[in-house]
Amino acid sequence: MTDQFDPTPSDRFTFGLWTVGNPGGDPFGPAVRPSKSPLELVEGLAQVGAWGVNLHDNDLIPFGSSPSERDRIVSEFRAAVDSAGLCVPMATTNLFSHPVFRDGAFTASDPKVRAYAVRKAMRAIETGVELGAQTIVFWGGREGCESDACRDVRDAIKWYRDAYDFLGGWVKEQGWDLRFALEAKPNEPRGDIYLATTGHILHFIETLEHAEMIGVNPEVAHENMPGLSMVHAVAQAMEASKLFHIDLNAQRIGRYDQDLRFGSEDAKGAFFLVRLLEGTGGYDRYEGPRHFDAHAYRTEDWDGVWDFARGCMRTYKILAARAAAFDADPEVREILEAGQADPDSVGELIGSFDAERCAKLEALELDPEALAAVGKRYERLDQLAMEHLLGVRG
Amino acid sequence: MTDQFDPTPSDRFTFGLWTVGNPGGDPFGPAVRPSKSPLELVEGLAQVGAWGVNLHDNDLIPFGSSPSERDRIVSEFRAAVDSAGLCVPMATTNLFSHPVFRDGAFTASDPKVRAYAVRKAMRAIETGVELGAQTIVFWGGREGCESDACRDVRDAIKWYRDAYDFLGGWVKEQGWDLRFALEAKPNEPRGDIYLATTGHILHFIETLEHAEMIGVNPEVAHENMPGLSMVHAVAQAMEASKLFHIDLNAQRIGRYDQDLRFGSEDAKGAFFLVRLLEGTGGYDRYEGPRHFDAHAYRTEDWDGVWDFARGCMRTYKILAARAAAFDADPEVREILEAGQADPDSVGELIGSFDAERCAKLEALELDPEALAAVGKRYERLDQLAMEHLLGVRG
Amino acid sequence: MTDQFDPTPSDRFTFGLWTVGNPGGDPFGPAVRPSKSPLELVEGLAQVGAWGVNLHDNDLIPFGSSPSERDRIVSEFRAAVDSAGLCVPMATTNLFSHPVFRDGAFTASDPKVRAYAVRKAMRAIETGVELGAQTIVFWGGREGCESDACRDVRDAIKWYRDAYDFLGGWVKEQGWDLRFALEAKPNEPRGDIYLATTGHILHFIETLEHAEMIGVNPEVAHENMPGLSMVHAVAQAMEASKLFHIDLNAQRIGRYDQDLRFGSEDAKGAFFLVRLLEGTGGYDRYEGPRHFDAHAYRTEDWDGVWDFARGCMRTYKILAARAAAFDADPEVREILEAGQADPDSVGELIGSFDAERCAKLEALELDPEALAAVGKRYERLDQLAMEHLLGVRG
Amino acid sequence: MTDQFDPTPSDRFTFGLWTVGNPGGDPFGPAVRPSKSPLELVEGLAQVGAWGVNLHDNDLIPFGSSPSERDRIVSEFRAAVDSAGLCVPMATTNLFSHPVFRDGAFTASDPKVRAYAVRKAMRAIETGVELGAQTIVFWGGREGCESDACRDVRDAIKWYRDAYDFLGGWVKEQGWDLRFALEAKPNEPRGDIYLATTGHILHFIETLEHAEMIGVNPEVAHENMPGLSMVHAVAQAMEASKLFHIDLNAQRIGRYDQDLRFGSEDAKGAFFLVRLLEGTGGYDRYEGPRHFDAHAYRTEDWDGVWDFARGCMRTYKILAARAAAFDADPEVREILEAGQADPDSVGELIGSFDAERCAKLEALELDPEALAAVGKRYERLDQLAMEHLLGVRG
Repeated sequence: MTDQFDPTPSDRFTFGLWTVGNPGGDPFGPAVRPSKSPLELVEGLAQVGAWGVNLHDNDLIPFGSSPSERDRIVSEFRAAVDSAGLCVPMATTNLFSHPVFRDGAFTASDPKVRAYAVRKAMRAIETGVELGAQTIVFWGGREGCESDACRDVRDAIKWYRDAYDFLGGWVKEQGWDLRFALEAKPNEPRGDIYLATTGHILHFIETLEHAEMIGVNPEVAHENMPGLSMVHAVAQAMEASKLFHIDLNAQRIGRYDQDLRFGSEDAKGAFFLVRLLEGTGGYDRYEGPRHFDAHAYRTEDWDGVWDFARGCMRTYKILAARAAAFDADPEVREILEAGQADPDSVGELIGSFDAERCAKLEALELDPEALAAVGKRYERLDQLAMEHLLGVRG
Repeated sequence: MTDQFDPTPSDRFTFGLWTVGNPGGDPFGPAVRPSKSPLELVEGLAQVGAWGVNLHDNDLIPFGSSPSERDRIVSEFRAAVDSAGLCVPMATTNLFSHPVFRDGAFTASDPKVRAYAVRKAMRAIETGVELGAQTIVFWGGREGCESDACRDVRDAIKWYRDAYDFLGGWVKEQGWDLRFALEAKPNEPRGDIYLATTGHILHFIETLEHAEMIGVNPEVAHENMPGLSMVHAVAQAMEASKLFHIDLNAQRIGRYDQDLRFGSEDAKGAFFLVRLLEGTGGYDRYEGPRHFDAHAYRTEDWDGVWDFARGCMRTYKILAARAAAFDADPEVREILEAGQADPDSVGELIGSFDAERCAKLEALELDPEALAAVGKRYERLDQLAMEHLLGVRG
Repeated sequence: MTDQFDPTPSDRFTFGLWTVGNPGGDPFGPAVRPSKSPLELVEGLAQVGAWGVNLHDNDLIPFGSSPSERDRIVSEFRAAVDSAGLCVPMATTNLFSHPVFRDGAFTASDPKVRAYAVRKAMRAIETGVELGAQTIVFWGGREGCESDACRDVRDAIKWYRDAYDFLGGWVKEQGWDLRFALEAKPNEPRGDIYLATTGHILHFIETLEHAEMIGVNPEVAHENMPGLSMVHAVAQAMEASKLFHIDLNAQRIGRYDQDLRFGSEDAKGAFFLVRLLEGTGGYDRYEGPRHFDAHAYRTEDWDGVWDFARGCMRTYKILAARAAAFDADPEVREILEAGQADPDSVGELIGSFDAERCAKLEALELDPEALAAVGKRYERLDQLAMEHLLGVRG
Repeated sequence: MTDQFDPTPSDRFTFGLWTVGNPGGDPFGPAVRPSKSPLELVEGLAQVGAWGVNLHDNDLIPFGSSPSERDRIVSEFRAAVDSAGLCVPMATTNLFSHPVFRDGAFTASDPKVRAYAVRKAMRAIETGVELGAQTIVFWGGREGCESDACRDVRDAIKWYRDAYDFLGGWVKEQGWDLRFALEAKPNEPRGDIYLATTGHILHFIETLEHAEMIGVNPEVAHENMPGLSMVHAVAQAMEASKLFHIDLNAQRIGRYDQDLRFGSEDAKGAFFLVRLLEGTGGYDRYEGPRHFDAHAYRTEDWDGVWDFARGCMRTYKILAARAAAFDADPEVREILEAGQADPDSVGELIGSFDAERCAKLEALELDPEALAAVGKRYERLDQLAMEHLLGVRG
C-alpha cells in the first residue's frame, strides 16, 4: 500500500549509519539486534527511500585501523553508496566513545588529549572529503564536566576556540569547500556540556577566526531535553544564515536522550518545525538534507528498524502537507494580516537611529488603552493549526 | 549578634524596589503584606546593609503619571536615596505588565505597540540617567508566544533588533555613557520567550548595530528553570567581556519562576557562581553590583522580608569565604595542576592555523590508551568542594 | 460551518466558572478582559454547547458575604443554570486565595487555620449540594512548603487525614450521597505541595476512614508539569475504581501551570487519554463529566475565550473519533493480539500462590534466547497511532 | 588524616556490588576501568568502612550459569563477605539487562516472559536468603513502554500484581522472614515506567495480597529526576510504616539517571533527608541500612572509585551532625513552637467525625483577617538551616 507520503530520494532524507545501525543497547542492557555492516545498512536505506547516508569515522572504520585497512574500507563503502544510488552529504568525528576522551576532547584538561582529538578530527574530515561530504558536523559529547571544580569554563571555551580556529584554517589550506556545523547538547553523557544550546553555539561561532564557514546543526532532542523551543532555535539560526545542517528526531522534555522517531512526540512542535524548513511567510526553504538522528526502540528487531525509518520520513511528508494547507487557509491569513497591519507605516520608524524618524515617533498619537483592548485571535489560530494537523480541515 | 558575614555597603549589594517591595501576591492569591512606599523601602535597604537600589520605571512612577507628578516623584526618590547613603546603579523598563503589551512590546505584531514600547523605554532611560544609573537592563517578559502560529520568529527577531538599534543610537545621540544589559528567560509569562537563554542573547547582541554597548544580565532562576548551568552562562559572558550586570536568586529546575532567596537552592551551584564572580584561577573579579532579584515567601510579614534580604547577602559572603578557602587548598591546587600539566607545550600547537605547528602536531607521539588510563581525581576534587562548602575543611 | 465535531450537551462537557471567567491576569500583569458575572458565563457556556458548569465557593459567593447575600446569590445562580439548561455536577472550595491560607489550609501549622479551613469546606459543600453537585473536588493549593524546615511532612499528612476523616463523616451524617475527588499537584504556588501526584493521593486515600467515598481528580497539567504520564495515572485510578472526576487541559513539561486549551500540547498523549476515557480494549468507558480546567491565553478578548472553549471540546471529539478508528484498525489488532498471545495459558500460572501452579511454572520449558529474539512491532504500532492521529489513515 | 566523619561499620553504610563495581561505560562510550571481581569489591568496601554489600543476582552469578557454578560462586562470595566482616542485608533480581526483558518482565505482553521473570526472581530470592538478606528489592526497569499503543496500562498493573501475589505467597510457603521493597522510577530505560513514583507504588502495594510484607525502596535520583521531593516521598512512606529500604545518591532534576555521589547535588535536600532518617521532631530513626546506589564519574580510575565511596559516607555523617545541631538550635525551636502553638486545643476538634466536636468547631470564633496577618518566619528558619548546613552556626 503506497500513498503520496512514501519517501523518495527527491525528498533528500538522510540517516546516519549509527541510527539505523543502532543495535538496541542502553545503560541497562546490551544490544538486542544482530549487527549489520555499513554495506548492509546502505542497501537497506536505499530500499526504504532515503537519499543519503551520514557517518562518524568510527561507524565505518574501527578505532585503531591501519591506513591500508582504512583505505580499503572507505573505498568499499564508497562503491556501495554509489551502487545504491545514495550519497554521503555529511561526515563527523567520534570524539566521545574512546576512554581517551573521558574528560573531553577539544576541551580536555590534558593538552595531549586535545592534540589527539584535533588530529582525529583531521583524519575524519579527510574521510568525509573522500566520500563527498560537504558538511562536517561536530558534536562535543564529552566537552563538559560533572563538577565545575574540574576546570574553569573560560579555559574550556578558549581551548574549544583554538581547535576550531586550527581546523578551519587547515581545511582552507587544503583548498576544500567544506562547512562545519556545530551541534549543541545541554547534558548527557556529561553532567553539563559546554555551550549548552544552539544559542550558546551561535554566539561562540561569532568569536571564531573562520566564522563564515561555521554554522549550527540543531537537534530536536537536544533543544527539547531542557524544554527549549527547537523552532525558535532553528529560526534564530536561519535568520543569521547559520542553519548548515539539522538533526530530526523526537524527545520528551526533561528525560535522557531518547532519539525517538521523528514526529512521535510533540506533534505540534514538529509541525511548526517542518513548516519553517519548508518555507513559510515569504521566507526561503532550507535547502540542506533532512537528516534523521534517531533510532528504533529496543523492543524492535530488524523489521522494526525499517518500520522506524519509514515512519520518520512519512511523518515529515505528512506534516509538510499539513503545513502548506495551514499557510494557504484563508482564515489563517486573515488573522495574521489583521494582526500585523501597518497602514501608517509606523513600523518603519524603528530601526537604526535617525533624528527625523525619532521626531515622528515622539509625535505619534498612541493610546495604550485602545491598543490594549484588541484581542489577538490566537486561540482560534492555534486551533486552526491543530485541526490542520489532525487532518479535519482542508 | 553580628559576624564577618553581615553585609556592608562596601560589598556592593543591590536590590530592586520590586524585590523587597513584593507584597506576596501570586497567581493563586492576592497580596498578603501591606504595601511600602519606595521611600520606606530605600530606608529599609539602607538599614540591612545594602549599597544600592534598582527599579523599573513603574516601581516608582505609576503608569500614566503626568510629567509634573513624575518629576516630583523622581526628585523625592533621589533625595531619599541620597539621604540613605544608597545609589541607583541600574534602571529598567516595565514592558510586561500593562495589557498593551499582552502580545509583546518590541516584538509585538502590532507596530503601534512596538512604537509605544520604544517610547516607554526612552522615558525610563531618562529616569535612569536622572537617578545616576550606569546600566539599563531590558527584560522582555512578553516577547514570545504561546503558539508559533502567531508570527514568524524571524520577524520577531528583526523587530527586536530594530528596537535596540534605535535605542542604542538614541542613547549615543544624547551623549550618555550607558550600557544596556539584556536578560534572557525561557518562558513565563509567555509559553516560550524569544532568545530563551543567555547564550541566545549573546548571539543576538553580536548582530546589533551598537553591540559594543550591549551585554547581558544573566539571572540564576532564568538559566536554572530549564536546568541549564548558570555558571557556564556567566563564564561564557565573562569570557566575551559581556557580563554587564547579574541577577542573583535561587530556583528549582523545571518550576514556575520562584525568585527564591539567594543560595537557598543548589548550594553547590551558588558556591561556584560566587567563586566565578569573586575571581578565581587567574581571572579577574566581576566589578559590577551584586544584585538580588528575589523576594520573600508569601508566608512572611515585613520582618520576614528583611530576614530574606539579610539572608541573601549573608549567604553570598559565606560562599565567597568558602570559595577562597577552596582555591587556597593545597590538595585542590595539586589535583588541578597535575591534570592540566603541559611540560612539552603541546597546548600551544593548537590555535590559529600555521603549517609549522601543524607539522609538529602531526609528528607528536600520542598513545590513546596511555592517555586514557589516567584517572582525573574529580570525585575527590568535588568532595573537597563539598567539604569546604559544608564548613568542615579549614 | 458545523461538522460532527461540534459539541452538544450529550457529550457531557463541563467548564469551571473560573476557566472561561479567567480575566487574563498573571504574575507579571493584571487582568486584560473585563469581568463577566457568573450568570453571563453560564449563558455563554450554554451557547457554545457545554453540558455543565462547576465552581469554587468564591467564584460565585464573594469571600465574607453575609448568609442572606449568599442565599440570594446561590438562588439566582441556580435559576440561571436551570434556565440555560445546564447542570452543576461538581463543586469545590477555594482554600488557597485568601491570605489566611498563606501557610496551608488543612495542613497549616496553626490549628485555628485548620479549623477555619474545615468550616469553609463545610459551607462550600452545602452550596454544592444545594446546586445539585454529586462530586466535591478538593485541591489543596497551599498544602505544602518552600522549606522542609517549616514542619514535619508526617505532621502535615496526619492533619490532612484528620480533615478528610472529619468531612467524610460529616457528609455521611447529613445523609448526602456525595463523593470527594482529591486533586494532586506537585508545586505552584508552594515550592512543593504535599501528596505531589495522583499516585501519592491514591495511597493517602487508602489510609482514610471514609476511603470508599473518596477518589481522585487527576489533571493533565498537574501530572505533566513534572513530566509524568497522565495516561498512566488515570489508568491506575481507573483500575482501582477511583477515577471520580477529571481535569482536562494541556501543559508543557517543566513549566509554570499553563492550563492550556485541551489537546493543544502533547497531541499523542491527549489521544491516548481520550481513548482511555472513551473505553478501549474491553474496558468500560469513564462515565463522569469531561471537565475542562483551562483558560484562554492573555492575548484574547471575549471572542477568544469562546474560541478557546469550543476548541477544547472539538479537539476532544476529534481525538475520540481518531481513537475509535485506531482500535478498529485490523493491523493494530493483529500486532496487539500477536504480542499477547497465550496459547498454552501460561499467564494463568501467575497470581495468588498455589503449589500446583507453582510446580507447573517451575516445569515450563522457557528459552530466554528464543523469547528475546521476537521483535515487538511497536515502531509500526506507534506510527499507526500517529497516522490515525494525523488523519491520513482510515 | 581522619576525623569524626570517617565511616565505620556501626554507621551501617552499604553499597551495591554494581555501584563501586561500575566500570564507567555509558550510552556514548564503553567501560574505562578494568573490572574487579565481587571478591575484590568486598575487600575494598571493608577497607573504606562499609558495613554491608548488596547485589543483583547477575552481579555475582553470570546469566546462564549452571547450578553447580552458581553454588560455588555463592559459597565463595559468602566466605569472602564473612572474612571481610561485612554482611549482605539486601538482594535483588536483574530483570532489565537481558534482551528477554526488552518489553518488560512482570508486565511483559508475552506471558512466557512473565513466567520466566517470576522464576528468575525466585532463584534470586533463594540466593538472597542463602547470603542472609532480610530485604528483597524489586526494581522493574523494563516495566513500561515508549508508546501507550503497546498495551493497556491496566493490564500491565494486573500482571504486576499477579507477580507479587505469587512471589509473596511463595516466600511465605518457604517460611522465610523476608520483606520486599519496591523501587519506583519514572522513566529510563523505558519512555515511561509503570508506577512512576514512590507514591504510585505505595498505592499499588495496598492492592496486593501480601501487602503487609511489602514496602518501598525510594531512591533520591528516581524521585528527583521529575523534580519531586524525596523528603516528602520518604516521609509519606515512613508515616505509613512502609520505608523498608532506601537508595541514597544525587541527581539533577530533568536529566538522565545520574547516580551521583550522595550529597553532591541539592545539599539542602540531602540535609533534610538525613534529618528525617536520623529521627527528628519526636519521630523515630529509620533503622535499616543506609544504602548507596551511585557510582563514580567516568573520569575516575580505581582510586577515584574509593574516593567516591568515602565521599558518600562522609557527607552523610556531616549532614547528620548538621541536622542534629539544627534541631537543637533554640532559635529554630522557638520559631517552630510559636507557629504550631495550640493553647485552646483547637487541633483536637478535627479528626474522626463526632457531633460534639463538630458543634465546638462550628462555635469557634475565628477571625480570618487576624489569622492571616501573622508572619511565619520561614525565611529566617530556612536561613538558619542554610547556616547550619554551611557550618557557620553552632
